[in-house]
Amino acid sequence: MTPMSGVVTLLTDFGLEDPFVGVVHGVILTRCPHARIVDLCHGIAPHDVREAAFWVSRCARYFPPLTVHVVVVDPGVGTDRHAIAVQTGDHVFVGPDNGVLTGIFTGGDVVHRIDEDRFALTDKSRTFHGRDVFAPVAAELASGRVRVPEVGPVAHPMKLDLTPGRVATIDRFGNLITDIEASPATLHVEIAGVSVPVADTYGEVPRGELVALLGSFGTLEIAVREGSAAERLGVGRGEPVSAREAR
Amino acid sequence: MTPMSGVVTLLTDFGLEDPFVGVVHGVILTRCPHARIVDLCHGIAPHDVREAAFWVSRCARYFPPLTVHVVVVDPGVGTDRHAIAVQTGDHVFVGPDNGVLTGIFTGGDVVHRIDEDRFALTDKSRTFHGRDVFAPVAAELASGRVRVPEVGPVAHPMKLDLTPGRVATIDRFGNLITDIEASPATLHVEIAGVSVPVADTYGEVPRGELVALLGSFGTLEIAVREGSAAERLGVGRGEPVSAREAR
Amino acid sequence: MTPMSGVVTLLTDFGLEDPFVGVVHGVILTRCPHARIVDLCHGIAPHDVREAAFWVSRCARYFPPLTVHVVVVDPGVGTDRHAIAVQTGDHVFVGPDNGVLTGIFTGGDVVHRIDEDRFALTDKSRTFHGRDVFAPVAAELASGRVRVPEVGPVAHPMKLDLTPGRVATIDRFGNLITDIEASPATLHVEIAGVSVPVADTYGEVPRGELVALLGSFGTLEIAVREGSAAERLGVGRGEPVSAREAR
Repeated sequence: MTPMSGVVTLLTDFGLEDPFVGVVHGVILTRCPHARIVDLCHGIAPHDVREAAFWVSRCARYFPPLTVHVVVVDPGVGTDRHAIAVQTGDHVFVGPDNGVLTGIFTGGDVVHRIDEDRFALTDKSRTFHGRDVFAPVAAELASGRVRVPEVGPVAHPMKLDLTPGRVATIDRFGNLITDIEASPATLHVEIAGVSVPVADTYGEVPRGELVALLGSFGTLEIAVREGSAAERLGVGRGEPVSAREAR
Repeated sequence: MTPMSGVVTLLTDFGLEDPFVGVVHGVILTRCPHARIVDLCHGIAPHDVREAAFWVSRCARYFPPLTVHVVVVDPGVGTDRHAIAVQTGDHVFVGPDNGVLTGIFTGGDVVHRIDEDRFALTDKSRTFHGRDVFAPVAAELASGRVRVPEVGPVAHPMKLDLTPGRVATIDRFGNLITDIEASPATLHVEIAGVSVPVADTYGEVPRGELVALLGSFGTLEIAVREGSAAERLGVGRGEPVSAREAR
Repeated sequence: MTPMSGVVTLLTDFGLEDPFVGVVHGVILTRCPHARIVDLCHGIAPHDVREAAFWVSRCARYFPPLTVHVVVVDPGVGTDRHAIAVQTGDHVFVGPDNGVLTGIFTGGDVVHRIDEDRFALTDKSRTFHGRDVFAPVAAELASGRVRVPEVGPVAHPMKLDLTPGRVATIDRFGNLITDIEASPATLHVEIAGVSVPVADTYGEVPRGELVALLGSFGTLEIAVREGSAAERLGVGRGEPVSAREAR
């Protein structure tokens, strides 16, 4: 038995309106009764693999060492895409091989393809591998009964181009969270043809003005003081952004 | 003490905007500190007893044996409707006696009426029995201190007519999840005057076309590839559906 | 080590669309692995300190003694507002010093200002103290390693005027939940120039009629039978309400 934290996080595009997340909890608890399951987020935009890749890479550090992170944003479910698992540093990650784990790779990682026939529920569906494949694998890993190298053969995972320079996600207030690491030298950001000044706090700009700030996950965020930057600029996830040292 | 899994699931129409679900957790944890509470779903359409009946019957199997499932969709709260508990197979169910548990009955079940005076919180409200009645009973059952036959006298529960042939629920993507068990002989389904072909995968139909598929909970689902079947057909929960072996 | 229940509740305006709540769980579980974290509610209207003050004062009683309640509705995050902790009766509360804890004070409470430099994450952000300050303090308190008097010096907390007479919150059905304790002598309530009769049950008024009832948290609620009182009256949170013994 490998010592594990017993914590399992779930990051999906399932939403919370339906019982999809609930049955994933059930499958994990059936196989790992002491698991501590955390709903990291189920509000990823449907099929937005890049948004999920951003969040898992930014959030994993806040969980205990030897946590199992399950990421299921999986537009290719039911096709021949593989399922993979990897340990990087202190954390274990499980997800489809569609690039969603790109942001957590550190360079020398050994990724394993999951032997689905061995781990899946006996009545595996075509469309719900979060419940039928990823949950049982996560439970085996979280319990310490199975180690990552034992889930299947070594694989060469698909990777996304995550070169910074985009709006990674938009929060409920309309703030545009970019994937650009903040630097003290950055004085402006450019987005949608608009130059936005970088400030230390909201207080430095008038109400209703655009401003770029260091966000709480270490990247630049574009905001409107007491307003919505997404509405103001009319942009969405994926919009290009560039950081400038001066205008 | 009866051995129990300690897992308690909650299936309600409370939504997650308000603290109603949170205080149910509090009441359960006060009486059963080791309970593992799973929010199976709180997005049941308000008062839709049939939708809840569908989901509890389809989801319970994914939880550990000796789980307590609490179903609170309860338009008759505050009237003289009873509260009931039953064990069927390995699982325990608690809910109002309004038919919401119909789908989990197996034929020879012995249902018990809950003695509310014995279990309810001392300041029981008229309108929130999820917190004041069902949560404390669930905690007693999950702790193993009370067994189902001890909650009150044998009852003859109300049952709904759950004859298949309807849209049971609609997921966040607009897929129509029916209550019709999929059969290899089914070639078409009929809904709202439209004949929809059954396929094995989305890939068999062009984008934007209606298709019926085996859904992830074992029933037929009606979908539009990369679209919303609910919008396309203009139908809602309860819409009649029939399965045809040929057109 | 102080004995604690290990239960931690979270009441915020973070919403559930993003991973903000999830990482708060992660920080707590990292420092207090046995914590039982309950999402009391994350749907507080953004920055509505009064709504949060209402709910925490009404909900804490449903949790086990020695629970730690974390309330993060914090429009002043990043300014020089303090963070505070207090034990009243059997419960411990943590939050910003902006009045959000006013409703749980009992008169002789000794409030402590949290020494943020001692407890905060090393890379504390300007804008996410729920994760960076309140979560680590809550974990230390819930673990029993730190007692309230040890978090920092005695403070004189800011208090809101919570004199009853307002719509405190509106539930998903459009019911107006007031902060007025129900009394048997109350025969009418007045809101927005309309006199609404008090009844014992919905059944006493016709469908579509306004009625005031004893709500499930002990205060008067204004409802429309099978409708939305918020829409009918066109009012929102904070609307004045008065209770009358006769018209």
